[in-house]
Amino acid sequence: MTTETATIDSLDFPTPAYAIGDDAADLLFRDARTVGAFTDEPVTDADLEAAYDLLKWGPTAMNITPLRLLVVRSDDAKARLAALAAEGNRDRILAAPVTLVVAADPAFHRHLPVLAPHRAAMVEGLEGQVATREAMARTNTHIQTGYLVTALRAAGLDAGPMGAFDAAGVDAEFFAESGWQSQLLVLVGHRDGVGTHHPRAARLTWDQVSATA
Amino acid sequence: MTTETATIDSLDFPTPAYAIGDDAADLLFRDARTVGAFTDEPVTDADLEAAYDLLKWGPTAMNITPLRLLVVRSDDAKARLAALAAEGNRDRILAAPVTLVVAADPAFHRHLPVLAPHRAAMVEGLEGQVATREAMARTNTHIQTGYLVTALRAAGLDAGPMGAFDAAGVDAEFFAESGWQSQLLVLVGHRDGVGTHHPRAARLTWDQVSATA
Repeated sequence: MTTETATIDSLDFPTPAYAIGDDAADLLFRDARTVGAFTDEPVTDADLEAAYDLLKWGPTAMNITPLRLLVVRSDDAKARLAALAAEGNRDRILAAPVTLVVAADPAFHRHLPVLAPHRAAMVEGLEGQVATREAMARTNTHIQTGYLVTALRAAGLDAGPMGAFDAAGVDAEFFAESGWQSQLLVLVGHRDGVGTHHPRAARLTWDQVSATA
Repeated sequence: MTTETATIDSLDFPTPAYAIGDDAADLLFRDARTVGAFTDEPVTDADLEAAYDLLKWGPTAMNITPLRLLVVRSDDAKARLAALAAEGNRDRILAAPVTLVVAADPAFHRHLPVLAPHRAAMVEGLEGQVATREAMARTNTHIQTGYLVTALRAAGLDAGPMGAFDAAGVDAEFFAESGWQSQLLVLVGHRDGVGTHHPRAARLTWDQVSATA
C-alpha cells in the first residue's frame, strides 16, 4: 500500500453526468438486463398501468400510438401461449409472473379524432387502406416497444423480450375478435438474482455506428 | 377560505412512485415533447455519444443492434437533406443544431462474432439472405429508435422525430457506400421555450390498449 497526496487529477469524476442522474441511467440502460428468471413477487395491474402511463407519452407518427398489450396472467392462458412459443421459451412463460404479448392495432385510425383531432378527416380514407394501416401500426408499435422496455424498468420491473413464437397462431388464439397483430413477447417480473443470466454481450462503438456529414 | 385540520386522507401522496424518481420520469416521458424549434446552444459529438452510450444497451433480437446514425451538422449536408424532406420540415432541418438520420444496417450480421459470439456461425448463412437481413435490421432499428429518443432526453437533449422524407433519395445521397437504409429523421437540440409547440395531444387509456387473459 502506498501513501500519496491526492491531486485533482487523480479524482474519478463521473463523465458524462446524465440529465436523469446516474442511478436512473444505470437502472434504465447500463445495469439493466434481459431477464428470463423471476422471483415469486407478483406483477400487479397497477404496476403495468404505471409503466403504460410513461410509455404512452413517447412520440409516434401522427400520435397514432398503435401498441396494444395482452397481459397473460392465468395458468390457462400461459399454457396456451407457451404452446405457441419456441420450445426453449416455454418454461419461462409458464414460470414468469406475467408475459405481455405486444401487438399492433391496425384499427388505430378509429382513435384519430381523439389522438390527432386535426387529422380526424383521415379516418374515412384510411378505412379502406388496410396494408397502409398494417404497416403504420407495425412500425410504430416497434418504436413504442422501445419505450415499453424502458418504461417497465422505470416502474421497477424487469423485462425479457422474446421474438421466437408463432405470431399467426397467437393472433388466432387471442386476437380473433380484436384484430390485433402480435409482434413480440415480453416476460415481466422481478429478476431472480443476476448470477443466472448470461454474461453481458458486447456493443459496437460510437465510431462503428455513426458518420458525420 | 375554510380552515380545516389536515387529516391523513387529505395528504396528496404521489402515486405511483417510479423507481427512477419522478423527476426522471418527467424528463423522459411526462414533460418531454416532440420539439421543432431549438436554441443556438450547440449539440456536441460528446452529447450524442453520451446518448449512444445509453441506447446501445437496449435489447434487440440476438443483440444485432442494427441502428446507425448519420449526424447532419454542416450547412451543406443540411441543405442536401432538407431538399429530400417534406416541404414543411425543410426550415426546421436548416435551423436545428443537428439532424440525425436514423438508418438500419442490413450488414449487421458481419458484427455477430463480436455481438453474439455463440451465433458467429450464422454469418455465412445470413450473407445470402438479403431480404431476411433487411427485415431484421428494419424491425430492430425501429425498436432501438424508442431507446434513442429516450436516451437523447436522458442526456439532456430534446428530440423532434420526423417521418416525412424521401428515404430512397436519402439513401442514394448519403448511404451509397455504406448500404445503410434510412428510416427516420430526428432533429436534436435544446428546446426554444415551450410556447412555440402544439398543445399536447391526448393518449388512450390503459383500458383501451390492454386486455387480460
